Amino acid sequence: MRTQVAIVGAGPAGLLLSHLLARGGVDSVVLETRSEQYVAARIRAGILEHSSVELLESAGLGARLRAEGDEHRGIHLQWPRERHHLDFVELTGRSVWVYGQTEVQKDLVAARRAGGQEIIYEVSDVALHDVDSDRPSVTYADRSGAVQRLDADVIAGCDGSFGPSRAAVPAARTFERVYPYSWLGILADVAPSTDELIYAWHPDGFALHSMRSATVSRLYLQVPNGTDPASWSDDRIWDALATRLGHGQNGWKLTPGPITDKSVLPMRSRVQTPMRHGNLFLAGDAAHIVPPTGAKGLNLAIADVALLSRALIARIRENDPRLADTYSETAQRRVWRCTHFSWWMTTMLHTSGDPFDAELQLSQLRWVASSRAGATGLAENYAGLPIFI
Amino acid sequence: MRTQVAIVGAGPAGLLLSHLLARGGVDSVVLETRSEQYVAARIRAGILEHSSVELLESAGLGARLRAEGDEHRGIHLQWPRERHHLDFVELTGRSVWVYGQTEVQKDLVAARRAGGQEIIYEVSDVALHDVDSDRPSVTYADRSGAVQRLDADVIAGCDGSFGPSRAAVPAARTFERVYPYSWLGILADVAPSTDELIYAWHPDGFALHSMRSATVSRLYLQVPNGTDPASWSDDRIWDALATRLGHGQNGWKLTPGPITDKSVLPMRSRVQTPMRHGNLFLAGDAAHIVPPTGAKGLNLAIADVALLSRALIARIRENDPRLADTYSETAQRRVWRCTHFSWWMTTMLHTSGDPFDAELQLSQLRWVASSRAGATGLAENYAGLPIFI
Repeated sequence: MRTQVAIVGAGPAGLLLSHLLARGGVDSVVLETRSEQYVAARIRAGILEHSSVELLESAGLGARLRAEGDEHRGIHLQWPRERHHLDFVELTGRSVWVYGQTEVQKDLVAARRAGGQEIIYEVSDVALHDVDSDRPSVTYADRSGAVQRLDADVIAGCDGSFGPSRAAVPAARTFERVYPYSWLGILADVAPSTDELIYAWHPDGFALHSMRSATVSRLYLQVPNGTDPASWSDDRIWDALATRLGHGQNGWKLTPGPITDKSVLPMRSRVQTPMRHGNLFLAGDAAHIVPPTGAKGLNLAIADVALLSRALIARIRENDPRLADTYSETAQRRVWRCTHFSWWMTTMLHTSGDPFDAELQLSQLRWVASSRAGATGLAENYAGLPIFI
Repeated sequence: MRTQVAIVGAGPAGLLLSHLLARGGVDSVVLETRSEQYVAARIRAGILEHSSVELLESAGLGARLRAEGDEHRGIHLQWPRERHHLDFVELTGRSVWVYGQTEVQKDLVAARRAGGQEIIYEVSDVALHDVDSDRPSVTYADRSGAVQRLDADVIAGCDGSFGPSRAAVPAARTFERVYPYSWLGILADVAPSTDELIYAWHPDGFALHSMRSATVSRLYLQVPNGTDPASWSDDRIWDALATRLGHGQNGWKLTPGPITDKSVLPMRSRVQTPMRHGNLFLAGDAAHIVPPTGAKGLNLAIADVALLSRALIARIRENDPRLADTYSETAQRRVWRCTHFSWWMTTMLHTSGDPFDAELQLSQLRWVASSRAGATGLAENYAGLPIFI
């Protein structure tokens, strides 16, 4: 089989890339090791930056987002006895949208199906070949076990941190940080107790009240690495959330409800550079992982793919290699900005056990909440920089 | 002997306090373990915040500062191949002044001499007594070795981190951070090679080009803890400064000159709370130490003393204890803001040897230099918050 762009991975990065390429007249085939159902059900991020929303909308993917998503003007930033609202729209003119990655994935699957996109699920033994030549290819075993070969002009590695693409960049540099805490995340069938997200610093550890919809809440607790979710009963979780989020303070109440999902997420930063080797281009988690505190993972993937689709269309359709040649450097600027912001949010909000750190964090939080420059700095990073600068 | 306020320490904090108290009609006696010459010659900070300048001026101490000091609109922030000017005046309406602590000290000594202030130098065996009673006292041995006793309404501990005052606060909490690097600082008899300070991030380590006057330069290099200044020859120092400060880049040149002083400064943060116990009040380095990167040490001492003088005048002259009762809490807010800012500047600019840290630092520096919010955040902290909020 032959195509112009072989895309490894059918998550949001891979499907959005195939969609943007198709709109630009470039063909692609998408390979995915998991089943369509598995990919669709994965619970991931839920916040879309201003620029991500604009990009999805301009690509014809905004209808359900606008109808069913929830626009947020900002976030609440909290520490014991104080809660402050940061109004991103007033500070920067940009908002964010709560719209789960699962919903983005559904919209992408529907759009690609309507476009007749070839997506091959449940492949195995994916291997990349001759990526530094003009004739790169991908081999894989299909569902029946038969070995297949996909020839392409370009391979796009959208297969996350566990896929084979990132290892196919030789002599890559990897920058990594493992944080000394994890998140215990729950989904609960209960209306959110807040209009916008609450980021809470607390001596017991960070807590976050997020949401998926008007009837589904998503909440997180900082826990030690290696925590077994089974060691946290539902009651213990709601008690800790009530304490850390300030139930009862200034009349605010946290309403508990049935917990439908409980899992522990490690916190890690990883950046691999370069994001291109020959005719292999990396995008999304294949090139970088951020801790979820800044809500940047999905947005970075969308930004990568926006840059990469333009670069590949120019290269393939117009034989203009300039954007492809600068793709890695251009993308990395944003990657590091978001990696820094994610690190900053993470280290500002998670307790380390060191009393000096705690006082630094509280002073920083007070400054962010009281200084227009401080609030704007958080807002412009959270609501997101323009993709094309 | 009896006075209203016994001030321990004749550095800038102690002398400025005696000056402000005298202007408010409150008497004091200042005790100092060192000689007048020793205190006058100590080389310390050189940057005065906007509010410090205003306060000194309003206290009649601004004439020589305005005539001989040098107003700076901002700083240069640099990393390899890039130098950016942050214009504090344009960003915040506030400037800073280069005017050495030695000069402030001279002005204070002259003013107190003109005011007939009692300053007793070269005392020893200073001990504080009954600080939680209405009759606190200080005993000390005078120059002749005779033991003396000074009775007072209040004792002000302005005797730095090595003086006895801070240990006289029982059950105080101390927050501390020792940084894994030091500064090798030099004074050189050469005109500064820059109009305003250059803060330079470099893979070899941080460098700072500061100045004392039109003919005296003050420069610093990040060095490992435990560095012996004798292990750095003058040539090695100028070579390292040229490399880190970017000699030859964009036509900029560093002009070396005779080095007249060479010393290694450790980098430490320390905050002690509370800053008051009974009738003992701490101000300046007795209560807190910051690393010099943010130029906050002298300015924090001035701000403490501004708050403390008002509180003591109200308490002693008007029998109104309210400002004295809130002094520690009010002062600590600013202390933590400056401690955080000093930590932030320090950790953003000093290399740790970790490549992930280096990329975070560079991304942060790029953001500060390119975002108005980022630049304003640095500027408003560097040029300083108002003292009385």
